[in-house]
Amino acid sequence: MGENENQVVRKRALSATKADEIQAVEKKVRSSQPDKPCHKPRDSLFSWNSGFDNFTGLVNWAFLLLSMGGLRLLLENFIKYGIRVDPFQWISFVINPEDGSEYPSLLLLLYHIVPLSVCLIIEKALSAEVVPNGIGMLVHVVNLLSVILLPMVIIHVKDGFSLVGASTVCTVYSVLFLKLWSYVQVNMWCRSARQNNNKGSLRRQSVSLSSLQRAKEQKKQSVKGSTEDLGDGLVHYPDNLRLKDLYYFIFAPTLCYELNFPRTERIRKRFLLRRAFEVIVGTQIILAVIQQYMIPSVKNSLVPFSNMDYTLATERLLKLAIPNHLSWLIMFYILFHSFLNLTGEILQFSDRHFYADWWNANNIDIFWRTWNLPVHRWAVRHLYLPMVDMGYGRLTASMVVFFISAFFHEYMVSVPLKTYKIWAFMGMMGQIPLSFLSRAVEKRYGPRFGNIVVWSSIIIGQPLCIMMYYHDYMVIHHGPAIAEYAQV
Amino acid sequence: MGENENQVVRKRALSATKADEIQAVEKKVRSSQPDKPCHKPRDSLFSWNSGFDNFTGLVNWAFLLLSMGGLRLLLENFIKYGIRVDPFQWISFVINPEDGSEYPSLLLLLYHIVPLSVCLIIEKALSAEVVPNGIGMLVHVVNLLSVILLPMVIIHVKDGFSLVGASTVCTVYSVLFLKLWSYVQVNMWCRSARQNNNKGSLRRQSVSLSSLQRAKEQKKQSVKGSTEDLGDGLVHYPDNLRLKDLYYFIFAPTLCYELNFPRTERIRKRFLLRRAFEVIVGTQIILAVIQQYMIPSVKNSLVPFSNMDYTLATERLLKLAIPNHLSWLIMFYILFHSFLNLTGEILQFSDRHFYADWWNANNIDIFWRTWNLPVHRWAVRHLYLPMVDMGYGRLTASMVVFFISAFFHEYMVSVPLKTYKIWAFMGMMGQIPLSFLSRAVEKRYGPRFGNIVVWSSIIIGQPLCIMMYYHDYMVIHHGPAIAEYAQV
Repeated sequence: MGENENQVVRKRALSATKADEIQAVEKKVRSSQPDKPCHKPRDSLFSWNSGFDNFTGLVNWAFLLLSMGGLRLLLENFIKYGIRVDPFQWISFVINPEDGSEYPSLLLLLYHIVPLSVCLIIEKALSAEVVPNGIGMLVHVVNLLSVILLPMVIIHVKDGFSLVGASTVCTVYSVLFLKLWSYVQVNMWCRSARQNNNKGSLRRQSVSLSSLQRAKEQKKQSVKGSTEDLGDGLVHYPDNLRLKDLYYFIFAPTLCYELNFPRTERIRKRFLLRRAFEVIVGTQIILAVIQQYMIPSVKNSLVPFSNMDYTLATERLLKLAIPNHLSWLIMFYILFHSFLNLTGEILQFSDRHFYADWWNANNIDIFWRTWNLPVHRWAVRHLYLPMVDMGYGRLTASMVVFFISAFFHEYMVSVPLKTYKIWAFMGMMGQIPLSFLSRAVEKRYGPRFGNIVVWSSIIIGQPLCIMMYYHDYMVIHHGPAIAEYAQV
Repeated sequence: MGENENQVVRKRALSATKADEIQAVEKKVRSSQPDKPCHKPRDSLFSWNSGFDNFTGLVNWAFLLLSMGGLRLLLENFIKYGIRVDPFQWISFVINPEDGSEYPSLLLLLYHIVPLSVCLIIEKALSAEVVPNGIGMLVHVVNLLSVILLPMVIIHVKDGFSLVGASTVCTVYSVLFLKLWSYVQVNMWCRSARQNNNKGSLRRQSVSLSSLQRAKEQKKQSVKGSTEDLGDGLVHYPDNLRLKDLYYFIFAPTLCYELNFPRTERIRKRFLLRRAFEVIVGTQIILAVIQQYMIPSVKNSLVPFSNMDYTLATERLLKLAIPNHLSWLIMFYILFHSFLNLTGEILQFSDRHFYADWWNANNIDIFWRTWNLPVHRWAVRHLYLPMVDMGYGRLTASMVVFFISAFFHEYMVSVPLKTYKIWAFMGMMGQIPLSFLSRAVEKRYGPRFGNIVVWSSIIIGQPLCIMMYYHDYMVIHHGPAIAEYAQV
């Protein structure tokens, strides 16, 4: 049996090699034929068997088609609406408030000196131990709350704010709030470190009061230590509690306070000019896109949205999505690259890590961790980690971060528009289920599809919120006229 | 001096290492501070200094934006024109010719048997040496010319051809012409090889007639040789000159004749069904794209093209370019992958190399060498190489190939449309300067930009030609009406 099997195997092997030989011979014979054969067994490239997978040319194809489609939409828009770009409109926004008599935005911006001074004075008092800790912290909290509430109340009560002016005020006061929070917290850390040091040295003194010699040595050491501290070129608490230091932090492109920021050696003039140029030109481009593309699209979308005409509303939404996304991308670039680098260069602030590669983010969480590093760093350093240190769970801490982030998004949109809807807040809270979805997609279909989910949410989510706000804004201010128009 | 210099260098080196040390110490000191420093000197990712270059997410972004833009255009089109797709229109094209009484296209298609039989009969006569070579070749040339000229004359003279019917006839007769050319040439090669063999053996015989022994040996050898030839499983000239063999070649997915095509062992039923499904569905999609998108766009483009309104004409051109390009891509897939693989599978024809990776082509030459391999292989084997063998220069041979290719492009468009303009011909001839341009771009800016030039020419060139033909067609048939309309 065994021998027979062996023979069968050997025979098969022989026939296999024979088949190969026959094939090779056939090939040789075929190529020597007088009809010059030019065919051989091959699979098509699109067949799975071919194993072919080089489609790099299609990337160029996609970008080419994209720019051609963009060019066509540009032409179509110009044919339909003419040129609506007015590069000087922003000047009128800044110079003339709506009623033309006062500059409430400017006054409100100047008012920032008050909460700032209050904050510094309390810190000085706390450092000098003139004020007890509890009371000082209470005043801080009230002061910080006033920073947030003041613009809200004044913009709501007082007329005469232009949309741009009110937006600027809200943005500046949000940033001020986050910066002062950081300032207070860092100084608190320094204070508690000083206290611990003092306690430590007191304890040491009480333990080792055995001989005069030892005490003298200790005194020498502590003196040595303090001279060393003073000789390391760093500013130490409470020497940092000065208005100049605080203002440097207020203008520096970061939300996280430090006593000694890393600095550059010199201001690169060319770099400075380039960034300034980008800021000026980029702002103009965004303004042009808004005037030429977004305003007509948003206006056209009003009636379909009111009528719940889904086909038309979707078409309008997609039409708005492209210029909106484009201006968001430019905004990102000029704000996070050009503007923050510009201020960084002027202030010789050397940490320019304002954004990471969010465009490669494979899920929503990574996107939120990478697109806005100043805010992300602030949230981790001043909210998430302190909460975790206080014993809260990581999930709770994340939720709180999200909640506060959602609040500020809502704040910076609703207050200037004076429409207290919660679309921005809902949009931010919607990120939580989206985060689960995107991670599920990433896990199931791979990182590429996770990245596509992230991009989709960026491209679609924003114009949806804009349309909601515009719709509500128009319904509140011109309700009856629209209702009539929609019925016609 | 030398010592002084050395000292300076040494001092500098020392200070350099000292600076490094200081930096390291500073870093250590900073991180031990109570203010928990979180900044360090870093460049932004968009700064050249950062060296960052991972933008893979932007590829997903481009494809997403592209499909979203496409979806919006789809919706816009439906809103504007309603649903214009009629999947049964093609049936009426095939079944009912324009005047509804005759089937001239079908009759003309059946007529192919005549030139085919003539060709086979002449080959048989030439093989049997009944007809002298010169006369046989003359009849072949006349027969082949009739294959090209017959549809041209009949479609022009006789009414009742539908556009689809006339196009099918022209395509089929063009293919027939190329196939018969190949058939005649390959048989000629075989005949001349047989002649040479005979001459060779005659010469050998005349040289080595020294002894009977040798002659006998030779006879044995030649008998052995011929039995070997017959035993290799291949068909040899003139055994191939049968109608069945010729029809296999006519239906096989290649333009290059061989006596022994490589064959597959079995028909894969699943593969067959999938390809058939793709052909049916793909045809319907192309039809739908033409009905829904191209016809409205082309109609709308007429007046701007007549008026020489460049802005509007460009917008129309770009609008037409997208659906035209899309249907061309689908057409490419169903013709070169689905249909040719389908016929290949049915005929167990195993060489499925119908296209190479033209989408990665970095210049126009590579594109023309890779997108249509049956025609490319025919041109090289039956036109270019024979011409080079005949002593023509490579450039001349290339030009002739281009010229004949341009002729067939023009033939397959102009004859069915009955508008003897030369836009397709000019488009093909325009490939020559374009080839220089694309190679220059590739050389100057790298392969990516060469590829972009190729894609641009594909995406823009075709709709331009379509619009030219449509414009001329309409001016010829409805000239006065358009002139009036254009003036209004």
